[in-house]
Amino acid sequence: MGDQRRLGVVLFPRFELLDVFGPLEAFGMLPDRFELLMVAAARGAVPSAQGPGAVADFGFNECPPLDLVLVPGGIGTRAEVKNEALLDFLKRSADHATRVISVCTGSALLARAGLLDGKRATSNKRAFKWVVEQGPAVNWVKQARWVEDGKFITSAGVSAGIDMALAIIARLEGRETADKVAAAMEYRWHDDPADDPFAKLNGLV
Amino acid sequence: MGDQRRLGVVLFPRFELLDVFGPLEAFGMLPDRFELLMVAAARGAVPSAQGPGAVADFGFNECPPLDLVLVPGGIGTRAEVKNEALLDFLKRSADHATRVISVCTGSALLARAGLLDGKRATSNKRAFKWVVEQGPAVNWVKQARWVEDGKFITSAGVSAGIDMALAIIARLEGRETADKVAAAMEYRWHDDPADDPFAKLNGLV
Repeated sequence: MGDQRRLGVVLFPRFELLDVFGPLEAFGMLPDRFELLMVAAARGAVPSAQGPGAVADFGFNECPPLDLVLVPGGIGTRAEVKNEALLDFLKRSADHATRVISVCTGSALLARAGLLDGKRATSNKRAFKWVVEQGPAVNWVKQARWVEDGKFITSAGVSAGIDMALAIIARLEGRETADKVAAAMEYRWHDDPADDPFAKLNGLV
Repeated sequence: MGDQRRLGVVLFPRFELLDVFGPLEAFGMLPDRFELLMVAAARGAVPSAQGPGAVADFGFNECPPLDLVLVPGGIGTRAEVKNEALLDFLKRSADHATRVISVCTGSALLARAGLLDGKRATSNKRAFKWVVEQGPAVNWVKQARWVEDGKFITSAGVSAGIDMALAIIARLEGRETADKVAAAMEYRWHDDPADDPFAKLNGLV
């Protein structure tokens, strides 16, 4: 199974709470396997889209190398797609990482960083049109709970991040471990990445 | 529908991430209906059980009156059941609140504050034995996704808090609103409080 991996979450003002803390709950069940940290423009409190704040442990320029990078969505992405410091950090950290993960409209940030060009990816189903505009060279998948293409794994909106995180754990640590994590969360994992009723609900298919 | 309600989350060191941020994601979809704040022994950063920290907006002695109080679980509850300052805050805030809500082992804290005596309540299914010991006069329900008894609403472990939060939204704001919130979260709501496969999985029934 190899060494412990370092997973960094990229925070920005008005990030979506569950996009961050759903996956972190899953990865956090395996502290010997995943070291969790949060990174933002500067260390300290970062307010969420819902109001309550989270704490960035590192600023972009002091963050240690990450094995996994997780990018949340949220209404804050509307401003961050023009934030060169954040996009530069994504490019730098993606270069080193073995897995680059987004939840919800976080894929718009990866797209604007140019990281998804020519790749398959998905996003929030309600904000899909806006997300597609951020990455015209991306092969956007309308109906998917999550999409994996090389080291890039992008999920649909909000709670889809939990299902994707469990799939990543299954890939890295085995299916049995992922099932144990889901059970410890008392969570019924939707483990089929093609099982996405929200594409239809939002008129995308 | 009445006025906006103030929902306060009680944080303590080593709280469980999803216990807090699952429900806050749901309530946070309705900013005109629910004002969200976080309270702890002192304002500032509070580390979660998983490591990443959240920000308390108020200390116990400066917190404005709460309409809804939400108490998470997590390994930190093992120490907090003996924390008189926290138990006193729960008693005081529960006295004013119209809804007192717990997720996971948060019900152990409500029990130790004496708030659940003679009432029906549930908790995390893996830590059930320890929770029961914290409240011998509570009518603990082994198989339930969540339990409502008067103004006290207690959920099972971790992700059950999301299902309970949607049920509370349905009660306060109507079923249609709750369904819209679940759809916005791209979440398949388990809306039956009796539908709990985790009691059996953990040998409780």
